[in-house]
Amino acid sequence: MTQVYEKVALIGLGLIAGSMGLAMKRAGLAGSIVGHAHTAKSRETALELGLVDAVFETAVEAAADADLVVLCVPVGVMGTVAAQIRPALKAGATVSDVGSVKAKVIEMVGEHLPDNVHFVPAHPIAGTENSGPNSGFAELFDKKWTILTPSPDTDEGEVAKLREFWEALGANVDIMEPEHHDMVLAVTSHVPHLIAYTMVGVADDLERVTDSEVINFSTGGFRDFTRIAASDPTMWRDVFLNNKEATLSILGRFTEELFDLQRAIRHGDGDQLFDHFTRTRAIRRSIVEAGHDTDADDFGRGQKKDD
Amino acid sequence: MTQVYEKVALIGLGLIAGSMGLAMKRAGLAGSIVGHAHTAKSRETALELGLVDAVFETAVEAAADADLVVLCVPVGVMGTVAAQIRPALKAGATVSDVGSVKAKVIEMVGEHLPDNVHFVPAHPIAGTENSGPNSGFAELFDKKWTILTPSPDTDEGEVAKLREFWEALGANVDIMEPEHHDMVLAVTSHVPHLIAYTMVGVADDLERVTDSEVINFSTGGFRDFTRIAASDPTMWRDVFLNNKEATLSILGRFTEELFDLQRAIRHGDGDQLFDHFTRTRAIRRSIVEAGHDTDADDFGRGQKKDD
Repeated sequence: MTQVYEKVALIGLGLIAGSMGLAMKRAGLAGSIVGHAHTAKSRETALELGLVDAVFETAVEAAADADLVVLCVPVGVMGTVAAQIRPALKAGATVSDVGSVKAKVIEMVGEHLPDNVHFVPAHPIAGTENSGPNSGFAELFDKKWTILTPSPDTDEGEVAKLREFWEALGANVDIMEPEHHDMVLAVTSHVPHLIAYTMVGVADDLERVTDSEVINFSTGGFRDFTRIAASDPTMWRDVFLNNKEATLSILGRFTEELFDLQRAIRHGDGDQLFDHFTRTRAIRRSIVEAGHDTDADDFGRGQKKDD
Repeated sequence: MTQVYEKVALIGLGLIAGSMGLAMKRAGLAGSIVGHAHTAKSRETALELGLVDAVFETAVEAAADADLVVLCVPVGVMGTVAAQIRPALKAGATVSDVGSVKAKVIEMVGEHLPDNVHFVPAHPIAGTENSGPNSGFAELFDKKWTILTPSPDTDEGEVAKLREFWEALGANVDIMEPEHHDMVLAVTSHVPHLIAYTMVGVADDLERVTDSEVINFSTGGFRDFTRIAASDPTMWRDVFLNNKEATLSILGRFTEELFDLQRAIRHGDGDQLFDHFTRTRAIRRSIVEAGHDTDADDFGRGQKKDD
């Protein structure tokens, strides 16, 4: 494996950065990997687990001399961190990020970067509901998509290098305009998360149904909602604040459709319900066929003896 | 294992009945297990897989002489099937069901049953997104709850027998009033399913986002929605039509809360979002502690080498 970048700096050491570190080591991908995390505990954990080779107390120290600096912090502090590392950035270095929102991050980070570095924003569409450096694992990005959203005037060779880097981490890579990325993710990720958060809150609020009933009698479907709703609150707050327009637009579509089905229930229109539920099966089938999931039943997770 | 019922008849041979048959055999629980399914194919599959010992072309033949008759058909046809089997029901037999809705099923089935049989409605809260007799497995009910909703004038000994039966199938058993059951399930199951169905439909409808983008860039959260939305359309149509009031009531709470979060996004109220998202983590933790799921990360299903 060729080393695409000699020195890589990961700013922020959570699930994504930890997994990147492990995946880089699996691929023999960088001469040295350094990192910075805000808390001493995360820095210690990252060192102990060997996610990185060295840690620094400040972002600017970690970024010094790096050929690739990846911002792996919540979207809301990307701009602040970009301002912090600016003085240390090497001429010709590439700066990237892993934010779930692209247009706003590009705006917030871009204004702090000098002209002599390349900015290639990225979003690996991978994660779990767990967070922190000890949640990382080398296989997280395997066969998942990472989307790059460079501006049209970015050096093509540098975009190709970052693509090669992510492919070496195991990912499929696609290139997209930032605004389109934000719309796609609003529908496949951001709004579904908001809905799950909402439903879990409703369950908790019901005075006629106790929490223990919610817990005991939660079916596979609702358990999936609680799993989603257990995701990192800071990350998700920042996603919604920074992908406001696409989120609100998709939410509008969602409530429109929901009211339509609600009306069908109220009026007892079984045909409409049946047709809708039949149609949604097709998408699921496509996801299974595209290899993003299996058709093994999963609501009874780990129950089958032959699993 | 004592045989609680000598002859058990399963009317309808889908995921639940198939799993009951296998779980009964695992426990050595019945002298004979017979079944009826509408289609010849399902009857053949059930026999081939050994879910039952014998199959019949009509429900009334299967129910004849049975000590326990369990209606395992969609909620919408429970009443019809009850009317069909009525002539064959043995005096002193117990009739039960596995419907996800209880008050309406009790109304629809109850009116057809003679006074000399015991009616003990039941709902095993277990399932997968797959359907049909070949989806069944013996472990489906292990450590899951089955709720019985007998009327207060039902013979207590007969309720105790059905409890013993379900416990032998692996389940925990609870007793509840039908209306309360329907409210609990509306929040833990029915409304979450409707929401998932809605969101998957919205994704499919978007003209600015292609289906292949929805599929490629679906995150763990959305993949869970598509899994839910792949469930049996007939079953779910019948659930919504027959648990209308509780569903509409919970849907009202849900949209109220969703609009509140939507407003927080519009106004950029990060504190409200953060507080909400933090609170929902607690429910998830309770579910994990109650043993209904594990804290192993699941959005990266099957990816970890040490899984």
